[in-house]
Amino acid sequence: MAEEQYLAVAVDAAKNAGEIIRNGFYNTKNVEHKGQVDLVTETDKACEDLIFNHLREHFPGHKFIGEETSAALGATADLTDEPTWIVDPLDGTTNFVHGFPFVCVSIGLTIGKVPTIGVVYNPIMNELFTAVRGKGAFLNGSPIKASSQNELVKALLVTEAGTKRDKATVDDTTNKINKLLYKIRSIRMCGSLAMNMCGVACGRLDLCYEIGFGGPWDVAAGAVILQEAGGHVFDPSGREFDLMSRRMAGSNSLLKDEFIKALEDAS
Amino acid sequence: MAEEQYLAVAVDAAKNAGEIIRNGFYNTKNVEHKGQVDLVTETDKACEDLIFNHLREHFPGHKFIGEETSAALGATADLTDEPTWIVDPLDGTTNFVHGFPFVCVSIGLTIGKVPTIGVVYNPIMNELFTAVRGKGAFLNGSPIKASSQNELVKALLVTEAGTKRDKATVDDTTNKINKLLYKIRSIRMCGSLAMNMCGVACGRLDLCYEIGFGGPWDVAAGAVILQEAGGHVFDPSGREFDLMSRRMAGSNSLLKDEFIKALEDAS
Repeated sequence: MAEEQYLAVAVDAAKNAGEIIRNGFYNTKNVEHKGQVDLVTETDKACEDLIFNHLREHFPGHKFIGEETSAALGATADLTDEPTWIVDPLDGTTNFVHGFPFVCVSIGLTIGKVPTIGVVYNPIMNELFTAVRGKGAFLNGSPIKASSQNELVKALLVTEAGTKRDKATVDDTTNKINKLLYKIRSIRMCGSLAMNMCGVACGRLDLCYEIGFGGPWDVAAGAVILQEAGGHVFDPSGREFDLMSRRMAGSNSLLKDEFIKALEDAS
Repeated sequence: MAEEQYLAVAVDAAKNAGEIIRNGFYNTKNVEHKGQVDLVTETDKACEDLIFNHLREHFPGHKFIGEETSAALGATADLTDEPTWIVDPLDGTTNFVHGFPFVCVSIGLTIGKVPTIGVVYNPIMNELFTAVRGKGAFLNGSPIKASSQNELVKALLVTEAGTKRDKATVDDTTNKINKLLYKIRSIRMCGSLAMNMCGVACGRLDLCYEIGFGGPWDVAAGAVILQEAGGHVFDPSGREFDLMSRRMAGSNSLLKDEFIKALEDAS
Protein backbone atom coordinates (compact mmCIF):
# COMPACT_ATOMS: atom_id res chain seq x y z
CA MET A 1 0.00 0.00 0.00
CA ALA A 2 1.33 3.42 -0.96
CA GLU A 3 0.82 5.00 2.47
CA GLU A 4 2.75 2.27 4.23
CA GLN A 5 5.63 2.71 1.79
CA TYR A 6 5.53 6.49 2.37
CA LEU A 7 5.75 5.90 6.11
CA ALA A 8 8.57 3.36 5.86
CA VAL A 9 10.68 5.62 3.62
CA ALA A 10 10.03 8.64 5.87
CA VAL A 11 11.05 6.64 8.96
CA ASP A 12 14.28 5.59 7.24
CA ALA A 13 15.01 9.20 6.32
CA ALA A 14 14.26 10.38 9.87
CA LYS A 15 16.51 7.72 11.42
CA ASN A 16 19.39 8.56 9.08
CA ALA A 17 19.03 12.27 9.85
CA GLY A 18 18.70 11.41 13.54
CA GLU A 19 22.10 9.73 13.41
CA ILE A 20 23.64 12.99 12.17
CA ILE A 21 21.84 14.94 14.90
CA ARG A 22 22.95 12.51 17.59
CA ASN A 23 26.56 12.74 16.48
CA GLY A 24 26.46 16.52 16.43
CA PHE A 25 24.55 16.88 19.70
CA TYR A 26 27.48 16.11 21.95
CA ASN A 27 30.11 17.98 19.92
CA THR A 28 31.06 21.58 19.48
CA LYS A 29 28.87 23.16 16.86
CA ASN A 30 29.57 25.76 14.19
CA VAL A 31 26.65 28.10 14.44
CA GLU A 32 25.33 30.82 12.15
CA HIS A 33 22.52 33.23 12.95
CA LYS A 34 19.19 33.80 11.34
CA GLY A 35 17.34 36.64 13.05
CA GLN A 36 18.21 37.58 16.61
CA VAL A 37 17.76 34.34 18.46
CA ASP A 38 17.10 31.69 15.87
CA LEU A 39 19.99 29.46 14.89
CA VAL A 40 20.88 27.27 12.02
CA THR A 41 23.68 24.77 12.07
CA GLU A 42 25.57 22.72 9.62
CA THR A 43 23.68 19.74 10.97
CA ASP A 44 20.37 21.34 10.01
CA LYS A 45 21.50 21.73 6.41
CA ALA A 46 23.09 18.29 6.21
CA CYS A 47 19.90 16.68 7.54
CA GLU A 48 17.62 18.47 5.09
CA ASP A 49 19.81 17.42 2.15
CA LEU A 50 19.88 13.84 3.38
CA ILE A 51 16.11 13.67 3.91
CA PHE A 52 15.18 15.31 0.61
CA ASN A 53 17.62 13.13 -1.34
CA HIS A 54 16.23 10.02 0.30
CA LEU A 55 12.60 10.98 -0.32
CA ARG A 56 13.26 12.17 -3.92
CA GLU A 57 14.97 8.91 -4.74
CA HIS A 58 11.83 6.99 -3.80
CA PHE A 59 9.22 9.54 -4.83
CA PRO A 60 10.62 11.63 -7.71
CA GLY A 61 7.17 12.95 -8.66
CA HIS A 62 6.39 14.38 -5.21
CA LYS A 63 6.77 17.99 -4.14
CA PHE A 64 8.96 19.20 -1.27
CA ILE A 65 8.83 22.05 1.22
CA GLY A 66 11.68 22.33 3.71
CA GLU A 67 12.71 24.82 6.32
CA GLU A 68 16.22 25.27 5.04
CA THR A 69 15.25 25.35 1.37
CA SER A 70 12.55 27.91 2.13
CA ALA A 71 15.01 30.03 4.08
CA ALA A 72 17.43 29.91 1.14
CA LEU A 73 14.63 30.89 -1.29
CA GLY A 74 13.34 33.57 1.06
CA ALA A 75 9.82 32.19 0.60
CA THR A 76 7.73 29.14 1.37
CA ALA A 77 6.36 27.39 -1.73
CA ASP A 78 2.57 27.32 -2.07
CA LEU A 79 0.93 24.13 -0.89
CA THR A 80 -0.81 22.27 -3.72
CA ASP A 81 -2.95 19.14 -3.87
CA GLU A 82 0.06 17.12 -5.05
CA PRO A 83 1.70 14.78 -2.52
CA THR A 84 4.04 17.18 -0.70
CA TRP A 85 6.73 16.32 1.83
CA ILE A 86 7.03 19.07 4.42
CA VAL A 87 10.24 18.72 6.42
CA ASP A 88 11.91 20.31 9.39
CA PRO A 89 15.26 18.55 9.43
CA LEU A 90 16.01 19.71 12.98
CA ASP A 91 13.20 21.14 15.09
CA GLY A 92 14.48 22.63 18.32
CA THR A 93 17.64 24.13 16.83
CA THR A 94 18.25 26.31 19.87
CA ASN A 95 18.04 23.19 22.06
CA PHE A 96 20.46 21.43 19.73
CA VAL A 97 23.00 24.24 19.98
CA HIS A 98 22.71 24.25 23.78
CA GLY A 99 22.61 20.47 24.17
CA PHE A 100 19.08 20.42 25.59
CA PRO A 101 17.51 17.08 24.64
CA PHE A 102 14.21 18.20 23.06
CA VAL A 103 15.29 18.06 19.42
CA CYS A 104 13.73 16.14 16.55
CA VAL A 105 13.38 15.48 12.87
CA SER A 106 9.86 16.27 11.58
CA ILE A 107 8.68 14.77 8.29
CA GLY A 108 5.09 15.23 7.13
CA LEU A 109 3.34 14.34 3.88
CA THR A 110 0.21 16.13 2.69
CA ILE A 111 -2.02 14.69 -0.01
CA GLY A 112 -4.75 17.01 -1.27
CA LYS A 113 -3.37 19.50 1.31
CA VAL A 114 -4.34 17.11 4.14
CA PRO A 115 -1.61 15.95 6.56
CA THR A 116 -1.51 12.20 5.85
CA ILE A 117 1.83 10.85 7.08
CA GLY A 118 3.69 12.10 10.14
CA VAL A 119 7.10 11.09 11.49
CA VAL A 120 8.72 12.90 14.44
CA TYR A 121 11.96 11.39 15.69
CA ASN A 122 13.92 12.54 18.72
CA PRO A 123 17.28 10.77 18.42
CA ILE A 124 18.52 11.93 21.84
CA MET A 125 15.58 10.61 23.86
CA ASN A 126 15.13 7.77 21.34
CA GLU A 127 11.46 8.48 20.65
CA LEU A 128 9.91 7.83 17.25
CA PHE A 129 6.37 9.12 16.81
CA THR A 130 4.53 7.97 13.67
CA ALA A 131 1.05 8.22 12.18
CA VAL A 132 -0.78 7.47 8.96
CA ARG A 133 -4.17 9.16 8.47
CA GLY A 134 -6.89 6.73 9.54
CA LYS A 135 -4.43 4.22 11.01
CA GLY A 136 -3.68 5.57 14.50
CA ALA A 137 -0.59 7.08 16.09
CA PHE A 138 2.39 5.28 17.61
CA LEU A 139 5.41 5.89 19.84
CA ASN A 140 8.23 3.44 19.12
CA GLY A 141 5.64 1.12 17.60
CA SER A 142 3.15 1.17 20.49
CA PRO A 143 -0.24 2.89 20.05
CA ILE A 144 -0.59 6.25 21.80
CA LYS A 145 -3.58 8.37 22.66
CA ALA A 146 -4.14 11.86 23.96
CA SER A 147 -5.01 12.29 27.65
CA SER A 148 -8.47 11.79 29.13
CA GLN A 149 -8.17 14.92 31.29
CA ASN A 150 -11.54 16.69 31.26
CA GLU A 151 -10.85 19.56 33.68
CA LEU A 152 -9.01 22.58 32.33
CA VAL A 153 -7.71 23.44 35.81
CA LYS A 154 -5.84 20.13 35.88
CA ALA A 155 -4.43 20.48 32.37
CA LEU A 156 -0.73 20.88 31.58
CA LEU A 157 -0.14 23.36 28.75
CA VAL A 158 2.94 23.68 26.58
CA THR A 159 3.82 26.74 24.51
CA GLU A 160 6.93 28.70 23.53
CA ALA A 161 8.35 32.20 23.80
CA GLY A 162 9.19 32.05 20.08
CA THR A 163 12.03 33.97 18.50
CA LYS A 164 10.51 37.43 17.86
CA ARG A 165 11.45 40.08 20.37
CA ASP A 166 9.38 43.10 19.27
CA LYS A 167 7.31 44.57 22.10
CA ALA A 168 3.89 43.63 20.66
CA THR A 169 4.86 39.96 20.33
CA VAL A 170 6.57 39.69 23.71
CA ASP A 171 3.68 41.45 25.47
CA ASP A 172 1.15 39.22 23.75
CA THR A 173 3.15 36.12 24.71
CA THR A 174 3.45 36.97 28.40
CA ASN A 175 -0.08 38.43 28.72
CA LYS A 176 -1.53 35.19 27.38
CA ILE A 177 0.57 33.16 29.82
CA ASN A 178 -0.50 35.43 32.67
CA LYS A 179 -4.19 34.93 31.97
CA LEU A 180 -3.94 31.23 31.20
CA LEU A 181 -2.07 30.46 34.45
CA TYR A 182 -5.29 31.05 36.42
CA LYS A 183 -7.17 28.47 34.36
CA ILE A 184 -4.75 25.58 33.90
CA ARG A 185 -2.49 23.56 36.21
CA SER A 186 0.85 24.73 34.84
CA ILE A 187 2.88 25.54 31.78
CA ARG A 188 5.86 23.98 30.07
CA MET A 189 8.18 25.47 27.44
CA CYS A 190 10.57 22.96 25.93
CA GLY A 191 11.69 24.53 22.67
CA SER A 192 10.30 22.19 19.99
CA LEU A 193 6.78 22.62 18.60
CA ALA A 194 6.84 19.21 16.89
CA MET A 195 7.79 17.56 20.19
CA ASN A 196 5.12 19.61 21.98
CA MET A 197 2.43 18.29 19.64
CA CYS A 198 3.70 14.72 20.14
CA GLY A 199 3.66 15.35 23.90
CA VAL A 200 -0.06 16.12 23.69
CA ALA A 201 -0.53 13.14 21.36
CA CYS A 202 0.91 10.71 23.93
CA GLY A 203 -0.87 12.32 26.87
CA ARG A 204 2.16 13.78 28.69
CA LEU A 205 0.71 17.20 28.04
CA ASP A 206 -2.92 18.16 27.56
CA LEU A 207 -2.81 21.39 25.57
CA CYS A 208 -0.47 23.28 23.26
CA TYR A 209 -0.52 26.45 21.22
CA GLU A 210 1.90 28.63 19.33
CA ILE A 211 1.45 31.66 17.12
CA GLY A 212 4.06 32.99 14.70
CA PHE A 213 6.28 29.92 14.47
CA GLY A 214 8.57 29.25 11.53
CA GLY A 215 6.35 27.51 9.01
CA PRO A 216 4.35 24.42 8.05
CA TRP A 217 7.39 22.16 8.62
CA ASP A 218 6.97 22.64 12.39
CA VAL A 219 3.43 21.20 12.41
CA ALA A 220 2.80 19.06 9.30
CA ALA A 221 3.88 15.81 10.97
CA GLY A 222 2.65 16.71 14.44
CA ALA A 223 -0.83 17.51 13.13
CA VAL A 224 -1.55 14.01 11.83
CA ILE A 225 0.14 12.39 14.85
CA LEU A 226 -2.00 14.38 17.29
CA GLN A 227 -5.21 13.86 15.30
CA GLU A 228 -4.58 10.13 14.97
CA ALA A 229 -3.97 9.97 18.74
CA GLY A 230 -7.52 11.20 19.21
CA GLY A 231 -6.63 14.84 19.82
CA HIS A 232 -7.67 18.01 18.05
CA VAL A 233 -5.60 20.46 16.00
CA PHE A 234 -7.16 23.86 15.35
CA ASP A 235 -6.51 27.56 14.96
CA PRO A 236 -6.11 29.28 18.37
CA SER A 237 -9.23 31.33 17.46
CA GLY A 238 -11.22 28.12 17.21
CA ARG A 239 -11.36 28.24 13.41
CA GLU A 240 -10.18 25.35 11.28
CA PHE A 241 -6.44 24.59 11.35
CA ASP A 242 -4.56 26.10 8.40
CA LEU A 243 -1.22 24.36 7.87
CA MET A 244 0.26 27.44 6.18
CA SER A 245 -0.90 30.05 8.73
CA ARG A 246 1.87 29.76 11.35
CA ARG A 247 -0.86 29.49 14.00
CA MET A 248 -1.79 26.33 15.87
CA ALA A 249 -3.48 25.01 18.95
CA GLY A 250 -3.94 21.42 20.03
CA SER A 251 -5.80 19.56 22.73
CA ASN A 252 -6.91 16.15 23.81
CA SER A 253 -10.40 15.07 22.75
CA LEU A 254 -12.19 16.67 25.73
CA LEU A 255 -10.74 20.13 26.35
CA LYS A 256 -10.90 21.79 22.92
CA ASP A 257 -13.90 24.06 23.54
CA GLU A 258 -12.80 25.12 27.01
CA PHE A 259 -9.29 25.79 25.75
CA ILE A 260 -10.54 27.94 22.85
CA LYS A 261 -12.62 29.96 25.33
CA ALA A 262 -9.58 30.35 27.63
CA LEU A 263 -7.42 31.48 24.68
CA GLU A 264 -10.12 33.96 23.65
CA ASP A 265 -10.30 35.35 27.21
CA ALA A 266 -6.48 35.62 27.22
CA SER A 267 -6.33 37.69 24.00
CA MET B 1 36.53 8.44 53.48
CA ALA B 2 33.28 9.57 55.05
CA GLU B 3 32.18 11.75 52.12
CA GLU B 4 32.61 8.94 49.63
CA GLN B 5 30.53 6.66 51.82
CA TYR B 6 27.84 9.36 52.11
CA LEU B 7 27.74 9.65 48.34
CA ALA B 8 27.61 5.90 47.74
CA VAL B 9 24.77 5.40 50.22
CA ALA B 10 22.84 8.36 48.78
CA VAL B 11 23.26 7.00 45.24
CA ASP B 12 21.93 3.61 46.37
CA ALA B 13 18.94 5.29 48.01
CA ALA B 14 18.28 7.40 44.89
CA LYS B 15 18.45 4.39 42.59
CA ASN B 16 16.09 2.37 44.78
CA ALA B 17 13.62 5.25 44.88
CA GLY B 18 14.09 5.75 41.15
CA GLU B 19 12.95 2.19 40.58
CA ILE B 20 9.67 2.97 42.36
CA ILE B 21 9.28 6.17 40.33
CA ARG B 22 9.97 4.37 37.06
CA ASN B 23 7.41 1.69 37.86
CA GLY B 24 4.78 4.28 38.75
CA PHE B 25 5.55 6.60 35.84
CA TYR B 26 3.84 4.50 33.20
CA ASN B 27 0.88 3.40 35.35
CA THR B 28 -2.32 4.97 36.52
CA LYS B 29 -1.66 7.02 39.62
CA ASN B 30 -3.76 7.70 42.71
CA VAL B 31 -3.45 11.39 43.25
CA GLU B 32 -4.29 13.63 46.19
CA HIS B 33 -4.11 17.42 46.21
CA LYS B 34 -2.03 19.81 48.25
CA GLY B 35 -2.92 23.39 47.42
CA GLN B 36 -4.54 24.20 44.09
CA VAL B 37 -2.12 22.75 41.62
CA ASP B 38 0.51 20.89 43.59
CA LEU B 39 0.20 17.13 43.80
CA VAL B 40 1.42 14.40 45.99
CA THR B 41 1.28 10.75 45.10
CA GLU B 42 1.67 7.48 46.83
CA THR B 43 4.98 7.18 45.01
CA ASP B 44 6.21 10.38 46.64
CA LYS B 45 5.50 9.02 50.10
CA ALA B 46 6.88 5.55 49.38
CA CYS B 47 10.10 7.06 48.02
CA GLU B 48 10.66 9.32 51.03
CA ASP B 49 10.16 6.41 53.44
CA LEU B 50 12.55 4.25 51.44
CA ILE B 51 15.23 6.95 51.23
CA PHE B 52 15.03 7.96 54.89
CA ASN B 53 15.07 4.35 56.06
CA HIS B 54 18.11 3.63 53.90
CA LEU B 55 20.00 6.72 55.06
CA ARG B 56 19.04 6.25 58.75
CA GLU B 57 20.25 2.66 58.68
CA HIS B 58 23.72 3.83 57.62
CA PHE B 59 23.80 7.17 59.43
CA PRO B 60 21.62 6.91 62.55
CA GLY B 61 23.17 10.03 64.09
CA HIS B 62 22.38 12.32 61.15
CA LYS B 63 19.43 14.69 60.87
CA PHE B 64 16.77 14.58 58.17
CA ILE B 65 14.58 17.11 56.39
CA GLY B 66 12.16 15.81 53.78
CA GLU B 67 9.42 17.34 51.70
CA GLU B 68 6.76 14.83 52.74
CA THR B 69 7.77 14.76 56.42
CA SER B 70 7.74 18.57 56.51
CA ALA B 71 4.32 18.66 54.85
CA ALA B 72 3.03 16.19 57.46
CA LEU B 73 4.52 18.29 60.29
CA GLY B 74 3.27 21.53 58.74
CA ALA B 75 6.75 22.99 59.22
CA THR B 76 10.30 22.64 57.97
CA ALA B 77 12.80 21.77 60.69
CA ASP B 78 15.52 24.35 61.37
CA LEU B 79 18.80 23.65 59.65
CA THR B 80 21.62 23.03 62.13
CA ASP B 81 25.35 22.44 61.78
CA GLU B 82 24.82 18.68 62.20
CA PRO B 83 25.09 16.51 59.07
CA THR B 84 21.58 16.86 57.62
CA TRP B 85 20.07 14.94 54.73
CA ILE B 86 17.65 17.13 52.79
CA VAL B 87 15.47 15.06 50.49
CA ASP B 88 12.89 15.60 47.81
CA PRO B 89 11.79 12.03 47.06
CA LEU B 90 10.10 13.06 43.81
CA ASP B 91 10.83 16.48 42.34
CA GLY B 92 8.58 17.28 39.40
CA THR B 93 5.47 15.69 40.88
CA THR B 94 3.18 17.38 38.35
CA ASN B 95 5.33 15.95 35.57
CA PHE B 96 5.14 12.54 37.20
CA VAL B 97 1.35 12.66 37.34
CA HIS B 98 1.17 13.71 33.69
CA GLY B 99 3.89 11.35 32.48
CA PHE B 100 6.26 14.15 31.42
CA PRO B 101 9.82 12.84 31.75
CA PHE B 102 11.47 15.59 33.85
CA VAL B 103 11.17 13.92 37.26
CA CYS B 104 13.90 13.10 39.75
CA VAL B 105 14.97 12.10 43.22
CA SER B 106 16.96 14.84 44.96
CA ILE B 107 19.19 13.95 47.94
CA GLY B 108 21.47 16.55 49.48
CA LEU B 109 23.63 16.49 52.60
CA THR B 110 24.66 19.63 54.45
CA ILE B 111 27.49 19.67 56.97
CA GLY B 112 27.86 22.87 58.96
CA LYS B 113 24.88 24.13 56.89
CA VAL B 114 26.98 23.86 53.70
CA PRO B 115 25.68 21.69 50.83
CA THR B 116 28.34 18.97 50.67
CA ILE B 117 26.86 15.95 48.87
CA GLY B 118 24.37 16.14 46.01
CA VAL B 119 22.59 13.34 44.14
CA VAL B 120 19.90 14.04 41.54
CA TYR B 121 18.60 11.01 39.69
CA ASN B 122 16.11 11.06 36.81
CA PRO B 123 15.06 7.41 36.40
CA ILE B 124 13.04 8.07 33.23
CA MET B 125 15.83 9.73 31.25
CA ASN B 126 18.41 7.61 33.10
CA GLU B 127 20.53 10.54 34.27
CA LEU B 128 22.40 10.45 37.57
CA PHE B 129 23.99 13.74 38.62
CA THR B 130 26.39 13.58 41.57
CA ALA B 131 28.76 15.89 43.39
CA VAL B 132 30.89 15.99 46.53
CA ARG B 133 32.09 19.41 47.67
CA GLY B 134 35.62 19.97 46.37
CA LYS B 135 35.54 16.87 44.16
CA GLY B 136 33.72 18.02 41.00
CA ALA B 137 30.34 17.18 39.50
CA PHE B 138 29.39 14.20 37.35
CA LEU B 139 26.64 12.95 35.04
CA ASN B 140 26.51 9.15 34.94
CA GLY B 141 30.11 9.12 36.13
CA SER B 142 31.52 11.57 33.58
CA PRO B 143 32.69 15.02 34.69
CA ILE B 144 30.38 17.91 33.79
CA LYS B 145 30.87 21.64 33.72
CA ALA B 146 28.64 24.65 33.28
CA SER B 147 28.59 26.38 29.88
CA SER B 148 31.20 28.85 28.67
CA GLN B 149 28.57 31.20 27.25
CA ASN B 150 29.65 34.77 27.98
CA GLU B 151 26.88 36.72 26.21
CA LEU B 152 23.58 37.12 28.04
CA VAL B 153 21.73 37.54 24.74
CA LYS B 154 22.78 34.02 23.74
CA ALA B 155 21.89 32.45 27.09
CA LEU B 156 19.12 29.91 27.59
CA LEU B 157 17.21 30.50 30.84
CA VAL B 158 15.05 28.04 32.73
CA THR B 159 12.45 28.99 35.32
CA GLU B 160 8.99 27.85 36.43
CA ALA B 161 5.49 29.22 36.81
CA GLY B 162 5.36 27.70 40.30
CA THR B 163 2.17 26.60 41.99
CA LYS B 164 0.84 29.82 43.52
CA ARG B 165 -1.96 31.49 41.60
CA ASP B 166 -2.56 34.72 43.52
CA LYS B 167 -2.46 37.81 41.30
CA ALA B 168 0.70 39.31 42.81
CA THR B 169 2.70 36.10 42.24
CA VAL B 170 1.39 35.46 38.74
CA ASP B 171 1.96 39.08 37.68
CA ASP B 172 5.47 39.02 39.10
CA THR B 173 6.21 35.73 37.29
CA THR B 174 5.04 36.92 33.87
CA ASN B 175 6.42 40.47 34.22
CA LYS B 176 9.87 39.07 34.93
CA ILE B 177 9.62 36.76 31.92
CA ASN B 178 8.47 39.67 29.76
CA LYS B 179 11.47 41.81 30.68
CA LEU B 180 14.01 38.99 30.58
CA LEU B 181 12.95 37.88 27.08
CA TYR B 182 14.58 41.01 25.60
CA LYS B 183 17.91 40.17 27.19
CA ILE B 184 18.33 36.43 26.79
CA ARG B 185 17.98 33.99 23.90
CA SER B 186 14.97 32.07 25.15
CA ILE B 187 13.26 30.48 28.09
CA ARG B 188 12.47 26.94 29.12
CA MET B 189 10.04 25.68 31.78
CA CYS B 190 10.33 21.98 32.45
CA GLY B 191 8.74 21.49 35.87
CA SER B 192 11.63 20.35 38.09
CA LEU B 193 13.91 22.81 39.86
CA ALA B 194 16.46 20.13 40.76
CA MET B 195 16.65 19.09 37.09
CA ASN B 196 16.88 22.77 36.07
CA MET B 197 19.93 23.27 38.30
CA CYS B 198 21.52 20.11 36.90
CA GLY B 199 20.75 21.39 33.39
CA VAL B 200 22.81 24.51 34.12
CA ALA B 201 25.48 22.34 35.75
CA CYS B 202 25.96 20.27 32.60
CA GLY B 203 25.77 23.27 30.25
CA ARG B 204 22.45 22.49 28.52
CA LEU B 205 21.08 25.64 30.08
CA ASP B 206 22.97 28.77 31.09
CA LEU B 207 20.78 30.40 33.73
CA CYS B 208 18.03 29.47 36.18
CA TYR B 209 16.00 31.16 38.87
CA GLU B 210 12.94 30.46 40.96
CA ILE B 211 11.31 32.32 43.83
CA GLY B 212 8.80 30.79 46.22
CA PHE B 213 9.45 27.12 45.54
CA GLY B 214 8.63 24.39 48.06
CA GLY B 215 11.65 24.25 50.31
CA PRO B 216 15.34 23.39 50.72
CA TRP B 217 14.77 19.85 49.38
CA ASP B 218 14.37 21.32 45.87
CA VAL B 219 17.85 22.89 45.88
CA ALA B 220 20.11 21.21 48.46
CA ALA B 221 21.52 18.65 46.02
CA GLY B 222 21.40 20.91 42.96
CA ALA B 223 23.37 23.63 44.75
CA VAL B 224 26.49 21.52 45.29
CA ILE B 225 26.18 19.92 41.84
CA LEU B 226 26.01 23.32 40.12
CA GLN B 227 28.81 24.80 42.23
CA GLU B 228 31.06 21.80 41.67
CA ALA B 229 30.38 22.10 37.91
CA GLY B 230 31.94 25.56 38.07
CA GLY B 231 28.67 27.49 38.21
CA HIS B 232 27.29 29.94 40.74
CA VAL B 233 24.31 29.64 43.07
CA PHE B 234 23.02 32.86 44.62
CA ASP B 235 19.98 34.76 45.76
CA PRO B 236 18.15 36.39 42.81
CA SER B 237 18.94 39.77 44.44
CA GLY B 238 22.64 39.01 44.15
CA ARG B 239 23.02 38.33 47.88
CA GLU B 240 24.47 35.10 49.17
CA PHE B 241 22.40 31.95 48.59
CA ASP B 242 20.31 30.94 51.60
CA LEU B 243 19.28 27.30 51.42
CA MET B 244 16.20 27.90 53.61
CA SER B 245 14.92 31.03 51.83
CA ARG B 246 12.95 29.46 48.96
CA ARG B 247 14.77 31.82 46.59
CA MET B 248 17.48 30.80 44.16
CA ALA B 249 19.30 31.81 41.02
CA GLY B 250 22.07 29.99 39.23
CA SER B 251 24.43 30.68 36.36
CA ASN B 252 27.53 29.45 34.65
CA SER B 253 30.84 30.99 35.78
CA LEU B 254 30.64 33.99 33.43
CA LEU B 255 27.11 35.40 33.44
CA LYS B 256 26.37 35.85 37.16
CA ASP B 257 26.78 39.63 37.34
CA GLU B 258 24.92 40.33 34.10
CA PHE B 259 22.13 37.99 35.15
CA ILE B 260 21.74 39.66 38.57
CA LYS B 261 21.50 43.02 36.79
CA ALA B 262 18.88 41.65 34.38
CA LEU B 263 16.87 40.20 37.29
CA GLU B 264 17.08 43.55 39.09
CA ASP B 265 15.86 45.37 35.97
CA ALA B 266 13.03 42.84 35.67
CA SER B 267 11.77 43.39 39.22
